[in-house]
Amino acid sequence: MSQTLSEFDLIARFFDVQALTGSTDNPFIPLAIGDDCALLAPTAGCQLAVSVDTLVSGVHFLPDAPADRLAWRALAVSISDLAAMGAEPKAFTLALTLPQTNTQWLQDFASGLASAAQYYGIPLVGGDTTRGPLAMTLQVMGEVPIGAALRRDGAAEGDEVFVSGYLGAAHVALDYLATVQGGQASELLRAYYEPESCIALGMALRGMASAVVDISDGLLADLGHIANLSGVAVEIASELLPIHPTVVNLCDPALALKAAATGGDDYQLAFCVPADQVPALQALPFNVTRIGRCRAGRGVTLDQKSVSHAGYQHFEASHDDAR
Amino acid sequence: MSQTLSEFDLIARFFDVQALTGSTDNPFIPLAIGDDCALLAPTAGCQLAVSVDTLVSGVHFLPDAPADRLAWRALAVSISDLAAMGAEPKAFTLALTLPQTNTQWLQDFASGLASAAQYYGIPLVGGDTTRGPLAMTLQVMGEVPIGAALRRDGAAEGDEVFVSGYLGAAHVALDYLATVQGGQASELLRAYYEPESCIALGMALRGMASAVVDISDGLLADLGHIANLSGVAVEIASELLPIHPTVVNLCDPALALKAAATGGDDYQLAFCVPADQVPALQALPFNVTRIGRCRAGRGVTLDQKSVSHAGYQHFEASHDDAR
Repeated sequence: MSQTLSEFDLIARFFDVQALTGSTDNPFIPLAIGDDCALLAPTAGCQLAVSVDTLVSGVHFLPDAPADRLAWRALAVSISDLAAMGAEPKAFTLALTLPQTNTQWLQDFASGLASAAQYYGIPLVGGDTTRGPLAMTLQVMGEVPIGAALRRDGAAEGDEVFVSGYLGAAHVALDYLATVQGGQASELLRAYYEPESCIALGMALRGMASAVVDISDGLLADLGHIANLSGVAVEIASELLPIHPTVVNLCDPALALKAAATGGDDYQLAFCVPADQVPALQALPFNVTRIGRCRAGRGVTLDQKSVSHAGYQHFEASHDDAR
Repeated sequence: MSQTLSEFDLIARFFDVQALTGSTDNPFIPLAIGDDCALLAPTAGCQLAVSVDTLVSGVHFLPDAPADRLAWRALAVSISDLAAMGAEPKAFTLALTLPQTNTQWLQDFASGLASAAQYYGIPLVGGDTTRGPLAMTLQVMGEVPIGAALRRDGAAEGDEVFVSGYLGAAHVALDYLATVQGGQASELLRAYYEPESCIALGMALRGMASAVVDISDGLLADLGHIANLSGVAVEIASELLPIHPTVVNLCDPALALKAAATGGDDYQLAFCVPADQVPALQALPFNVTRIGRCRAGRGVTLDQKSVSHAGYQHFEASHDDAR
C-alpha cells in the first residue's frame, strides 16, 4: 500500500537497503525491517549484550555536522559498548528524530550508516522515524559466550591497568578546532567522527582482562567505574598516558594531559589484567599501553593525587554544553 | 565513585529501583543496569522479538502531559508491538532526553514506568539519559517460540478479519477533549494514556491467526500493511466496527466512524483468521469483533469504497501535528 506512505515512512525507505540490512539469509536475523518487530535467532551457548545511546543535536554534535560522518560516529560509539563487554556485533536498531525532510542530509546519513554497518558487520534490523528536534538513539545487540563477558567489577589488587590506542584527539578536535588548520585538523576530526571501536581487542580480552570499560566520559571518569564496582584503587601515572601525537604537537603539555585524561569521546578500551596475563596480552597484535596499577583502596589517582569532584565537574560542564 | 556522578547520572538513579529492574535472580537477565551493556540469556527454542518507538514532546504528546501517565503510555505503546508478534515481554531499555532536571517530573515518570513495567512483567535493563528537547525512545524485547511469531504477510483469500476491544476513544480524547467534561473525559483519557496492550491475546493467536498488526496509525492504515504484505484485499464493513461506547455517545456518527477507522493510538490488534479457526477464536476469553474479510485483490476497502490516499493524508496531518 505504497500510496499510504507518510513523509516519515518515505524517510525510512532511505534505510531499507541491502547495505544496511545485510544479507537476507543471515541466520541471526530471520525477520528484519517491515513488521511490528524484528525477529532475532540467538546463538546457542551465547548471551545477548545490549546497549543504547542517544546523540542530540547541539549537545553531542554540532547541528551542521556532516551527516555521513555523524552516522558513522553514532554507530561506532554504540558499538564501543559491545567491545567493552567482549561481545561480537550482531544487529542494531535506529530511532531517528528529524525536524524536516532533507533529502541530501538523509542520503548522506544513510550512506555513512551503511558504511559503518558494513565495516562492523552489524545489520540494521528495525527503527522508528519521528518528527522533532534532531536526535538519534541507537541500540546495538551483540553476542558473547556464556560466562565470557567482560565486566567492570572484576579488577583486583595488583592488576596492571592498560589503555588501547591514543588519547585526547577527539576532545581537542571539538574544543580547539578553530585554531587548527590542514592535515592536523583532518586527523583530529577523524578521531572524533570515526572512533575505532575495539571489537577485535574486546573479543581477544575474553578470559584475560579482569575488568574493562570503554572511554566515553574520559579516561579517569571511566576508570572510576572500574574502581568503584571492583572495590580497588586505580593508580595512573601521567607520563605513561599514550597522548595522541597530534595533540602533543598542537597543545601545551598541561592541555594535552587534560585532554587525554579527562577529555572523553576517545572510545578506546581501558582495562585491568592480572600480572600473570600481561605476557599473553603483550603477545597480541594490538596497540595497548600500560598506564598504571590497581592497589588496595578506592577511587582513582593521577600521579598520586586523588581525582577530584571539581575536576570531573569541569569536564562534564564542557562535555554537556551545546557545541 | 559516587562523587563523580553528573546531573544526568543522578537522574538515572531514579530508575535504578527494584520496581523497574525487577528481581535480581531473573534468569533471563544475568546483568542489568550498571555496566557497558546489559546481558540477556535467551531461552532455548525461542526467537527474540525487538521493536523501538520514539515519543517526542509536542509531536506525540502534550508538553504538559502528566509524567506518570506518559511513562505508562510509552511502555504500553512499545509493548503493543510485541503483542502483535505473539511475543512475551522480557526486557526493555529507555533512552530519555530531558531539557532540565525536574525532580517531581522524574519521580512521577519513574513511578508510572515502574507501574507499567510491573503490570506487563517487563524489567528495565539499560538506558541512556541525555540533555535536550524532551523525548523518549523505548526498545522492547520479547520472546516467541521459533516459527510461532505472528507476522503481517500470512493473510489469505477467505480469511475473516477481526479487531480486539473498542476503537476511537484515544483519538477523540486528544482532538475533542476541550468540549468533554467529567467521567466521560476520564474514560477517554484512560484510553489514550493507558492503552491495554494485548499480550495475552497475541500469545493466544499463535498458530491461529494468519496475519496480525497492532493499531497505532489507525485501523485502515494498519490493515493496509496486512493487505500489502499478504497480497490480498481487505474488505471492512463500517457497521461492524466496535466503536467505543463513549465515542458513540459524544460524537456524531460520521465523526465516530472516522475516529474508529482512521484515528490511531488504539493499540488494539487487527488480525486475520482462516474460517476454520474462527470457532476456536470465539471460544477464547477475549473481546474480539469480526469486521470484514480478505478477498482476492489488493488494498483496503471500507463499505466497498477504496480507502483513498487523501483520506490517509488527512489523518496523518492530524496525527503528526504538534498537540
